[in-house]
Amino acid sequence: MPKVLVTISTGFEEIEAITIIDVLRRAEIEVVIATINDILTVGANAIVIQANQYLKDINPLDFDMIVLPGGGINTQNLASSTLVQNSLKQMKEKDKYIAAICAAPYALHTANVLNRNYTCYPSFEEKIRQDGYQGDKQEVVIDEKIITSRGPATAMTFALELVKILKDENTYQKVKAGLLVKSS
Amino acid sequence: MPKVLVTISTGFEEIEAITIIDVLRRAEIEVVIATINDILTVGANAIVIQANQYLKDINPLDFDMIVLPGGGINTQNLASSTLVQNSLKQMKEKDKYIAAICAAPYALHTANVLNRNYTCYPSFEEKIRQDGYQGDKQEVVIDEKIITSRGPATAMTFALELVKILKDENTYQKVKAGLLVKSS
Repeated sequence: MPKVLVTISTGFEEIEAITIIDVLRRAEIEVVIATINDILTVGANAIVIQANQYLKDINPLDFDMIVLPGGGINTQNLASSTLVQNSLKQMKEKDKYIAAICAAPYALHTANVLNRNYTCYPSFEEKIRQDGYQGDKQEVVIDEKIITSRGPATAMTFALELVKILKDENTYQKVKAGLLVKSS
Repeated sequence: MPKVLVTISTGFEEIEAITIIDVLRRAEIEVVIATINDILTVGANAIVIQANQYLKDINPLDFDMIVLPGGGINTQNLASSTLVQNSLKQMKEKDKYIAAICAAPYALHTANVLNRNYTCYPSFEEKIRQDGYQGDKQEVVIDEKIITSRGPATAMTFALELVKILKDENTYQKVKAGLLVKSS
């Protein structure tokens, strides 16, 4: 069973975090929610979720993928946390998958793990770089093992792409149908 | 400020619950998460969220709207809870808004508060009634003050419709744009 580490902090965007976790678990992917703050972590819209573990007690290399949900304050926290930044660098070095949505690609940028092509919540490209920024050309940008996406409205497509990467087309189609996502 | 009561129990569908709460709060609508189980309520995909209050300590008539997220087990819990069923009947009697998504329209049916036209997660219409079932003709069905929707993939559209009802077109457009929902 693939293993995914979803890393959060105070101010995480709730739709993004929960959509990622829910969709991956529907695909029978093991998800551990790791926090750098309290186990009961408060999101950007004051929704409190219970993390499974503290990031400091986890070896990120036990996982196939690390995923960062967005939220402005969460992104600042993840970008300024040595623990998160080192985890990202370790994952990159070992050629593991790294994914981020919304403002959170900025925390990949500060860890120097973004590849050339990426997307993010509009305006955060000004803090990252214009070169390689794909805007809304695609809802999800996959550049080798770095996967990025734009915001709450693209979170389900993003999570489903992660399912396709970690499992297979059949699981992807099954989970997509269960969610009632229309085939475009 | 409009006030919305989101009622959950063990097994609630997380994407639906969190999308509703997040989107309504972005629209500056006051949302209280009420549980009929523990304050730390476990969802269908093992995500634990912290409710704000126990439903038993709340007067539903203090709210403009009650919303039920789905999830199969959650729906059974809401349908078999006298407290929830009575809350729904009181809201209907006082001509307040009642909204439900996914399997949860079944809990409106058992309380006898559904209007003629409704939708729900496919197959639950067999337990409700064929007459008036709108299937996927619309993602959200509004019949007077009863609003229903289909599942996780329609949760954002559903939540945005609730914003339009409780606030105004301008707030609706602003929140929609902030979520990066494409205008269709």
